[in-house]
This record gives sequence, structure tokens and C-alpha cells, in this order.
Amino acid sequence: MTQATADAQTADFMALAMEMAARARTIVLSHYGVAPDVIAKDDQSPVTIADRECEAAMREMINARFPDHGIYGEEYGVENADAEFVWVLDPIDGTKAFVTGKPLFGTLIGLFKDGAAHLGVMDNPALDEVWAGAPGGPATCNGTPVSARTCADLADAWLCSTSPQMHLGINFDRFERLRHACRYELYGSDCYSYGMMAKGRVDLVCEASMQPYDYAALIPIVEAAGGRMTDWSGAPLGLNGDGTVIAAGDPALHAAAVAILGG
Amino acid sequence: MTQATADAQTADFMALAMEMAARARTIVLSHYGVAPDVIAKDDQSPVTIADRECEAAMREMINARFPDHGIYGEEYGVENADAEFVWVLDPIDGTKAFVTGKPLFGTLIGLFKDGAAHLGVMDNPALDEVWAGAPGGPATCNGTPVSARTCADLADAWLCSTSPQMHLGINFDRFERLRHACRYELYGSDCYSYGMMAKGRVDLVCEASMQPYDYAALIPIVEAAGGRMTDWSGAPLGLNGDGTVIAAGDPALHAAAVAILGG
Repeated sequence: MTQATADAQTADFMALAMEMAARARTIVLSHYGVAPDVIAKDDQSPVTIADRECEAAMREMINARFPDHGIYGEEYGVENADAEFVWVLDPIDGTKAFVTGKPLFGTLIGLFKDGAAHLGVMDNPALDEVWAGAPGGPATCNGTPVSARTCADLADAWLCSTSPQMHLGINFDRFERLRHACRYELYGSDCYSYGMMAKGRVDLVCEASMQPYDYAALIPIVEAAGGRMTDWSGAPLGLNGDGTVIAAGDPALHAAAVAILGG
Repeated sequence: MTQATADAQTADFMALAMEMAARARTIVLSHYGVAPDVIAKDDQSPVTIADRECEAAMREMINARFPDHGIYGEEYGVENADAEFVWVLDPIDGTKAFVTGKPLFGTLIGLFKDGAAHLGVMDNPALDEVWAGAPGGPATCNGTPVSARTCADLADAWLCSTSPQMHLGINFDRFERLRHACRYELYGSDCYSYGMMAKGRVDLVCEASMQPYDYAALIPIVEAAGGRMTDWSGAPLGLNGDGTVIAAGDPALHAAAVAILGG
């Protein structure tokens, strides 16, 4: 495949991802105004009818356009996982935020190619922000290029994590070491943490107990913004991982964080 | 003072509070687009030029209109604290959120009368939401009445707290007991947690290490929405407190939380 053909293909995929994000936004916002009914899943995490309706709509759009692509979604599982291209979908990341009227939740649409993150879109309906990242281009927020900031030293770093309680067992001790090495920590931003990093406002996001649909869409955004995102050992994030994620706006800071987390 | 005169006076105070919120919003948003310089205060909490500019503008407005009122502000301290009416100001609650581009920060404008919370306004500039509460009226968001929801049982309750690390020493153990008794917890919403409660989307907010300017404005909003807000022992929140705050949308739930926290 020539570079021009590859670029055209990426543009096609991005166009679909943006159409999916727009469709998802309509569905999500139609359920946002009042507290939705919550169904507790087997792992006790909450899900709503909005999550399911939204993922079903996105799957239909993929199947209509690229029937040979795989899909890995939070609510409806995996189909055709061995395909060259696999879409990785979280209809509502931050379901607790969505349910409680906290506007930081988002729809995550990632595309893996041959097992590696290829492009990603994050839509934050309540904030009217859509973020995107793909090979060869800048990260964007509502079409405007954004970039992560330089911060090589942990002592200067602002750290995000959804909750200290997501870090279980030995991971909790490692997270605590990282947290104490940083300047300030913030909790509870869910996927929006990665937007805050892509626009150069925080330096690190450290998470655990994550599934592929929680991070797949975010890798291309963080990396197109100039950052680096791996598991805690520094290895690439694939569709089978240990659930740890460390993202840094500055690759030098990423190395410093992995030195603490991976040990 | 007749009821009609008292109502007119409250309306005057609310009009000023809303003017202050609008002025504060202009200042805060003018500093929000890029990461502001951060000054670490003696207690290592961050402050920005926006906090200081904003509080100075609000103090000037109070002094021009009600020169005999007292003022208790986060950045410029206390003046005339023995006055019948004391304004309690936090120019930017959630400074870490403001600095990092997380849109949940807010300007808090409270008015105490004879040592008790009287009226309050919370402005969330990045969300375009202004919340208000005063005696005899409903709580409002952008002028529309809102109300807290019924939830009498801790096992059904959604709990907010800014960070587990704000709960120090014995308070941490008490917070953990409360957290485990609740259905779900969310961190990192700062003052917006109380808006989420006032609109009936969360049931409890449990905080510690709080100053009067962190909670003064929020009490009238929570109570006008039908909730209850005190310290962890169940005592009213005044200008001298132990820094603990427990707010519930349902007074029966408040009693259940105090039974755990106050023991």
C-alpha cells in the first residue's frame, strides 16, 4: 500500500469515527438530563440503557461500512477479533459521572490495526468537545490542534487518576510512590484526564484495573499530542493487558514514571 | 423588621451576589484558556493571579454597596468579622481543577447572618451554570428551580468527596466506614458535587479539611434544594469549625451518615 493510499484509508476510518461520535452524542445527551436507571453488572460496575443503545448504534455503523472489521465493545463483547482492523468501543466512559450529572464522561472510539492502536476519538457530549488523534497528524480538540507540554521532572508534575481505589494490591503501593513523587494529584476526571494532558494542562495519568475499551481510543490522541502511553512496565498497550496504564505528556517523564511503577 | 422588609433585603443581597458572580466569571474565564502560573501557598495549596484578582474585585463590590458588612475571603483574609452580615468568598474553589483545565471549579459567594448561613451563590464559569439558594425560595440553576432527591438508605446512596486524602487521621477511618456503607463513590468534583446533589443526582457529599469559604455558599443551596448540611457531628457549620462537612440530599440520609461519622 502506498503512503497516499494509507492516508486515504486513515481518513476514511476517521470520518466514520467522527460520524459514530456524533451519533453517540445524540443518544447520550437524550439520556443525560435526568438520573437514568442504573443496572449493576456482574462486577458491580454501573451501566445504563444509554450505554447499550449507544454501543449498538456504533456497531451497526461499523458493520454497515466495514463488515470485515472486528469489534471489541464494553457492552456487547468481541466479534471478529483476529481481523486486521478492530474497533474498540466504550459507549460511555465514566458511567458514574454520566449517571450523576458530572460532565466529564465521554464516548471512546478506538481503532486497532494489527494489534496496535491506530486512531482514536473521544467525545465529551456535556462539554461539547470532540478529541481526535491519528498517525501523521496533530491531536485535535474540535478540529483545533492541541499539544502536550514539556515536563521532564516528576517533582513538577500534575498527576491524574480516576480513584486511588482502582489501584489494588501491590499496584496501590506503586501508585502511592508515584503520587508522592509528583507535585499535585487530581482524582475523578475519567477519560477527560487524557484531554487535559493532550491540551498541555496535566503531565501524567496513572490508572489500573483498565480494560482495552477504557484506553484504546486515548493512545492515538495522547501520542499525536506528543505524549507517550503504555502499561506500567513500559510495554505497548494491546487488546490483552494487565490493566495498568501510564500516560505522560513528555516522553522523558513517562520514563521516570515507569521507573517507579514498573519496579 | 417585617417579613416584607426582610425579603426585600434578601433580594438586594442576592442581586449583589449575582453581580459579583458575573464579574468573577469574566475574570476567571479570561485566565482559563492557558495553564496559569501557580503560586504555592504556605500550606502548599496552589493559588493563581486569577484567584487574587477575582477576590479583590468582589471585595470592592461589597465595600461599595454595603460598607458595614464583614468579609471573610480565602485570599485576603477577614475584615469586620463581628458584623451582622459577613460575606464568605472563595474566588476559585477547585484551584487545581482551574489550573488543569478541568471544568468543575467554581466561584463561591456566601453570606452569613448572625453567624449562620443565609444565602449562597456558586458560579461554574466553564459550565455556564450559576446556582443560588436563599431562605424561602427554591434552589436554582440558571434560574430554574432544582431539588435534591429522596434516598434514605446508605446502601442506595451515591457519595462524593474531593479526595480520600483530605480525610486525615481518625477522620480517614470514619470516611472509609461511610464509603463502604454507600453504593458508589466519586472523587474530584470539588464544589460541583453540591450542585450534583442539589439537582438530585448524588445523595451525599463528605469532606474534611475544609475552610468556611469552601462551604459557606453551598449550605443555602443544599438546604433550599431540600437537603441538610452540617459538620460530621451534626452541628451547624459556622465560621469556626473543625473542617468536616457532611451534606445529604435527604435529611434522613444525613442522620444515617452522622451516625457513622460523628461516633
